[in-house]
Amino acid sequence: MTNHLNSINGPADLKKLERAQLPELADEIRQAILTKVTAAGGHFGPNLGVVEATIALHYVFDSPNDKIVWDVSHQSYPHKILTGRKEAFLDPAHYHDVTGYTHPSESEHDHFVVGHTGTSISMAVGLAKGRDLNGRDENVIAFIGDGSLSEGEALEGLDNAGAMDTNLIIVLNDNEWSIAENHGGMYEGLAELRATNGASERNMFRDFGLDYRYVADGNDTAALVEVFEQVRGIDHPVVVHIHTDKGRGSAWAEENKEAGHWRLPEAVAKQLEAAGEVESVDSVTVDFLENKMKADPTVVAITAATAGSGFPRDFRERVGRQFVDVGIAEQHAIAFASGIGKAGGKPVVEMYSTFMQRAYDQLQQDLALQGNPATIIMMSMGAIAPTDNTHSGMYGIAMANTIPGLTGLAPATREEYLAMLDWSIDRANRPVVIAQPGSLYSEADLVAALGGPVAEAREGFFDEKDLSYRTIASGSKVAILALGDFLGLGVRVRAELKEKLGVDATLIDPRMFSAVDAKALDALRDKHTVAVTLEDGLLTGGFGREVAAHFAADKSMTVLNYGADKEFNDCVPADELFHRYRLEPETIAEDVRLAL
Amino acid sequence: MTNHLNSINGPADLKKLERAQLPELADEIRQAILTKVTAAGGHFGPNLGVVEATIALHYVFDSPNDKIVWDVSHQSYPHKILTGRKEAFLDPAHYHDVTGYTHPSESEHDHFVVGHTGTSISMAVGLAKGRDLNGRDENVIAFIGDGSLSEGEALEGLDNAGAMDTNLIIVLNDNEWSIAENHGGMYEGLAELRATNGASERNMFRDFGLDYRYVADGNDTAALVEVFEQVRGIDHPVVVHIHTDKGRGSAWAEENKEAGHWRLPEAVAKQLEAAGEVESVDSVTVDFLENKMKADPTVVAITAATAGSGFPRDFRERVGRQFVDVGIAEQHAIAFASGIGKAGGKPVVEMYSTFMQRAYDQLQQDLALQGNPATIIMMSMGAIAPTDNTHSGMYGIAMANTIPGLTGLAPATREEYLAMLDWSIDRANRPVVIAQPGSLYSEADLVAALGGPVAEAREGFFDEKDLSYRTIASGSKVAILALGDFLGLGVRVRAELKEKLGVDATLIDPRMFSAVDAKALDALRDKHTVAVTLEDGLLTGGFGREVAAHFAADKSMTVLNYGADKEFNDCVPADELFHRYRLEPETIAEDVRLAL
Repeated sequence: MTNHLNSINGPADLKKLERAQLPELADEIRQAILTKVTAAGGHFGPNLGVVEATIALHYVFDSPNDKIVWDVSHQSYPHKILTGRKEAFLDPAHYHDVTGYTHPSESEHDHFVVGHTGTSISMAVGLAKGRDLNGRDENVIAFIGDGSLSEGEALEGLDNAGAMDTNLIIVLNDNEWSIAENHGGMYEGLAELRATNGASERNMFRDFGLDYRYVADGNDTAALVEVFEQVRGIDHPVVVHIHTDKGRGSAWAEENKEAGHWRLPEAVAKQLEAAGEVESVDSVTVDFLENKMKADPTVVAITAATAGSGFPRDFRERVGRQFVDVGIAEQHAIAFASGIGKAGGKPVVEMYSTFMQRAYDQLQQDLALQGNPATIIMMSMGAIAPTDNTHSGMYGIAMANTIPGLTGLAPATREEYLAMLDWSIDRANRPVVIAQPGSLYSEADLVAALGGPVAEAREGFFDEKDLSYRTIASGSKVAILALGDFLGLGVRVRAELKEKLGVDATLIDPRMFSAVDAKALDALRDKHTVAVTLEDGLLTGGFGREVAAHFAADKSMTVLNYGADKEFNDCVPADELFHRYRLEPETIAEDVRLAL
Repeated sequence: MTNHLNSINGPADLKKLERAQLPELADEIRQAILTKVTAAGGHFGPNLGVVEATIALHYVFDSPNDKIVWDVSHQSYPHKILTGRKEAFLDPAHYHDVTGYTHPSESEHDHFVVGHTGTSISMAVGLAKGRDLNGRDENVIAFIGDGSLSEGEALEGLDNAGAMDTNLIIVLNDNEWSIAENHGGMYEGLAELRATNGASERNMFRDFGLDYRYVADGNDTAALVEVFEQVRGIDHPVVVHIHTDKGRGSAWAEENKEAGHWRLPEAVAKQLEAAGEVESVDSVTVDFLENKMKADPTVVAITAATAGSGFPRDFRERVGRQFVDVGIAEQHAIAFASGIGKAGGKPVVEMYSTFMQRAYDQLQQDLALQGNPATIIMMSMGAIAPTDNTHSGMYGIAMANTIPGLTGLAPATREEYLAMLDWSIDRANRPVVIAQPGSLYSEADLVAALGGPVAEAREGFFDEKDLSYRTIASGSKVAILALGDFLGLGVRVRAELKEKLGVDATLIDPRMFSAVDAKALDALRDKHTVAVTLEDGLLTGGFGREVAAHFAADKSMTVLNYGADKEFNDCVPADELFHRYRLEPETIAEDVRLAL
């Protein structure tokens, strides 16, 4: 068996291989990715598909002088293997040495930290402009998938690339898939280009003013090396459209393009399989929505290409036109929802908060300013959590909280969550953002955790009339306002205050973050001198700051805000984050002691 | 002289005219717009160009049952005239009865409040989906200019429109202009379509999966009526590409497409002309930048289609490739700047904060997370000011303040502004957002207003080492922290406190909003018990909330935050806003008295 990888510690070593040896190298890299991702999890199909293209790029171009910008960069594993980071793919002890995305701190061959979609062309146009202003002449290459191309930023970039008159190479990696199927009119055009071996007159790249080449077999190293040699040093922008096979090398991933996009570590997957079907926030949400849809044909669920999170394939098939995947197009998703609401429909958008950042202006101008009814379920992949810095949900509530006209809710229990969804879809008649809870913490869990009944039993778990705070336990001296997912932490803080300070604290579930319940806060003045706010996200712009402001002119109430500092965190362990932000019952009790 | 307008109080009246009479009506409407906009100011060229198209739309379609969505809606004057609002264009006493944009509260013929670009297609796709879910069959029409088409949201919308299989009519109003010239590769394609009478194979609309019609003379009512009759009731999406003449009917506007886009009221224009060339924030900025560019060929100024604000035509010509207009493409502009910074260039982006909302995710992910050097000059058209609700700059600082990794500065004087620009471009080596001051308030003005020297004379007006607060006047009891443009208000509040309460207040120019100067705040504890924060923008997410948080656990300091509530304001007079938000020295002094 050949073992080319042994001798490759960077692109210079790769260039020593004969062209005929490149397919052998591809087999080795593919095997390494198959083995690692199966064991440790990660992006699967996207990386398996681009092994040959990555080899050919590094064979022909001179990285890092020539600059390759990987879109989303979830397909950068082969690139990492070829640029000095192979141990992280070959040696299980080093599997966690690298992140799943490009990262300049890892290698000089990585130019940006990337995890969002459709950014590569614009950033590459910028690299090219910076090159030109400095009088250099390196090649700049953007590597982007067909799924990413529907993103507004990518299309803006394509349009601007088309107006350039200097070197820029855009490699379009067309594997016929987004995370799920592609959605949008442009994909018919890409299909025609594939069907005509790139000869079709219908060519959006030429339309945007770009030169164009087509490679029918984007997994053929010889063809790829040839085309990259042709375009190396080109004096104008060109698109090299390569047709690749997502998931190549894994029969399972080739058959199951959507499921094969990303996979869990094998051990975790087996655990889940053994556990059988269990309820999850996703399953509870989709069951609720499907029932709503059956009763009301104007309810429509919308995703921007993340259907896998929340909308399983069989659901999509059952509800038909009551489900829309707009593709990777968050701006459109929100404006689209606003239009539906205006026309008498009941749109429900599910979107991760990190991607919702793409639609900040649409949330404000196209939706909130209009006041059209729409339910936005803001998902996170974890807020104060060990996520990649490119996917953190830590900023979602602060983002939504700076937008006027949005009603922002943060349910703390499963029952509240469903009651809020019900209200928002059927009765709110305005735009509502619901921060989806991370767990199915229930009212029963809450009662059990408290060791007794909640103070106020209400008909339903969400008082839709005045969006008021909900008092979970009435006490004195200290009021704990624990937002959404942090209600459980609030219960623990309350127990700690009882144990350490003998204080029977009041515990409040604020339920909304977009405004304070002034009446509830004012009512605290009588018996309390310290208010503690707990929120699973950024302090700046968050809910706690508004509570603090309510009491800022009032020397009788000390307010202690707990949440995240304004910073980026990259896969920082949760306990480290919670410690750093003092989100621990012991620490909070100590702060309260000083404040009492 | 005919006078059709007399008898037209809505689209039903228009339909009574013979087709041959429509050009006469067009003349009347054009004359009304010429007269009103010359006298009262407003969008000029865009409205003059679409008179015939608007007549034809309302002649053929049945508004408001059929729904017309106007992109940006700055071209909606003829639509307003035809839908019951003609007095606002014919009678000077009623000139201010309508806003410059569509507004559902004005008329059932307006479906959205619109002022941002590129939203019409997505919102129309939503209206169409809502129609389909409800089993109705009205026509939905998006009316969008060629300049708007480069916006990512418009392209996302186009791609999604192409995937529809029900009625949607997109009228592309191609007048060959954005606000300034169009920029981007797609515009060559539009030119080819015009040159070939719509027959070119290079057709981005067909590429996106849309049917297509071309009207060579988009100011010919007969041709327009004919094409609209053809597409009325169509069962799939179609683009009707009409070639119109921006500014038609005004020789001046036809010759001066950019200047003719919008005009000041005649009286104001004459005053300005009489005053001759005066310094403005724009002129000071561009002079500074041009000097920088001469000294350093890697400095590059970037605009997203608002070159008219800040970058005059002669400047653009002189600096050549050191100026880039990316077209209406804010997302691209920020990612592009990040790439330039990464490649050793010095990008300076000028953008209105209301449009920067489009690039929220790019500011966070593509720029701040990368830490690449870039200077973003965040302009506003007025923050707490009588702007349209679609163009308010009131949200800019709060928006930028929720993004980690951005250094946010708010200069209070002209000298500070230039010192910050200088620092950011040459030495900061990180992304910096500078909230451009609204005036040229100078250090000399400040000294004069204070009635004496400032407390700290520093070498330079911006301490770049630690981004510290600047103490303007040292006093006791009360500290006034007056951000950016509100330093002048801070001076007035200080005088009021002296006069009414006999307090010599400390006055601080914070200079930065992205972080508090903890040392400076802690130093206030000694001699002060009340801190007053003043900011020209949203309280939620703003600078004052962070100051309040700094003291929230400290009962020795009362903090009074002044700024704007989280709400939309539509052309509300400034004095009303300042009164509502208690931004008046007398009111603040009274609040301080109670807090002392």
